[in-house]
Amino acid sequence: MNQITEQMLNHTSIRKYTDEPITQEQVDTIVQCAQMASTSSHFQAYSIIEVRDPAKREVLKECSGGQKWTVTAPLVLLFCADLHRSGKYFDGIDKDVLTNTECYTVAVIDAALAAQNAFTATESMGLGGVIVGGIRNDVQKLIDTFQLPEQVAPLFALCLGHPDDNPGLKPRLPQAIVHKIDTYTEDGNDEMMEEYNARVKDYYTERTRGKNTNTWSQQCGQLMMAKTRDEVGFVLRKNGFLGR
Amino acid sequence: MNQITEQMLNHTSIRKYTDEPITQEQVDTIVQCAQMASTSSHFQAYSIIEVRDPAKREVLKECSGGQKWTVTAPLVLLFCADLHRSGKYFDGIDKDVLTNTECYTVAVIDAALAAQNAFTATESMGLGGVIVGGIRNDVQKLIDTFQLPEQVAPLFALCLGHPDDNPGLKPRLPQAIVHKIDTYTEDGNDEMMEEYNARVKDYYTERTRGKNTNTWSQQCGQLMMAKTRDEVGFVLRKNGFLGR
Repeated sequence: MNQITEQMLNHTSIRKYTDEPITQEQVDTIVQCAQMASTSSHFQAYSIIEVRDPAKREVLKECSGGQKWTVTAPLVLLFCADLHRSGKYFDGIDKDVLTNTECYTVAVIDAALAAQNAFTATESMGLGGVIVGGIRNDVQKLIDTFQLPEQVAPLFALCLGHPDDNPGLKPRLPQAIVHKIDTYTEDGNDEMMEEYNARVKDYYTERTRGKNTNTWSQQCGQLMMAKTRDEVGFVLRKNGFLGR
Repeated sequence: MNQITEQMLNHTSIRKYTDEPITQEQVDTIVQCAQMASTSSHFQAYSIIEVRDPAKREVLKECSGGQKWTVTAPLVLLFCADLHRSGKYFDGIDKDVLTNTECYTVAVIDAALAAQNAFTATESMGLGGVIVGGIRNDVQKLIDTFQLPEQVAPLFALCLGHPDDNPGLKPRLPQAIVHKIDTYTEDGNDEMMEEYNARVKDYYTERTRGKNTNTWSQQCGQLMMAKTRDEVGFVLRKNGFLGR
């Protein structure tokens, strides 16, 4: 265990922040760290929009179904998959290529790798935050609000600030379910899942003082079915992604 | 600057490794750190396959167009988007929902966030590595080789080991092109891109002793058009992703 792995193993989402601002120097370092993440073929197929405008913060809140930390966090970074820049600046590009599934995959991976670096850098400064993917409830509204051109897709908002909360660690899936050797096997998964579901039920029960007694299977099933976001595909296709 | 941001700002891809193995304890910590990354609605929609079998390492090499570090790296982790587990264990799931663009996006983001944590954790141990997305040249072969069930998609291989190389830092895009405030503007991009292209040309020229004198625009255009991977979409759709 070292300082970095210790920090990672103690990661938890922070949704309440003190009034202390994040300095411009910190913001610059966070973005620099994001940019130093690995990127597919050095394409760097993402953009980061820092959301300062209170009216646009309200849009994020509205799109995310009322997640108020999109408004209250001192720093909010909207990560976007960006193939628009590729279309504009890559020499000899057949723009139709950018509409394929591979290019969307590249851009989403690039954006997420950068975001996780940004997040880890932020935590190393004693700050904390949460990733809000719920803004994808209304992708079209985000495209309009942030004036995203064709082939730029809003993915999630990283909300950051000085922690005013300590929600404790959330239990992850048993390692043996996630980490396999050489082959995708499912041996023993049912038993491990039963144990994990009981552990998550205890976690929610304790954290909500009995208001939520869901297992992992129940919680995830409810969340996924509550917002299926079927229109994400429609809007992204309209905006030049995933044509094939 | 602290230890973590300093490490990130000095990140570079390592493709040559000493013979020193990565210990099982290190592997476990790396995977634990991956698992502690943020995840959409706690879905944890990814799986990690550690590739030990030399024959399967050869498949990775073949699929990636001969990237030999997929064979020579002491540790290779294949990151997969995984909605199969969601379909199996989420209560009350309409499996058709899992075929939408939103769910694919969730799973790719989850996998990449976890991978970047794994990578950063590895680097904190004095190790290094490289992410190989080139394996997506033959997604079907990967699905067959690792026996991936429906709704599991191979994304990239993280190749890790003790560094036997120091390739130096690769210049990233000007921060002002990637980092915008409140609105997606392109003001000044052409000028910044011109300066950046010159800088990248110098980087490649020096690094390859004049064999490659590409600008960023040239290099990226050539790489993207050389392997358009149009079949990724076809194979993923066949495997239960991105139906709509």
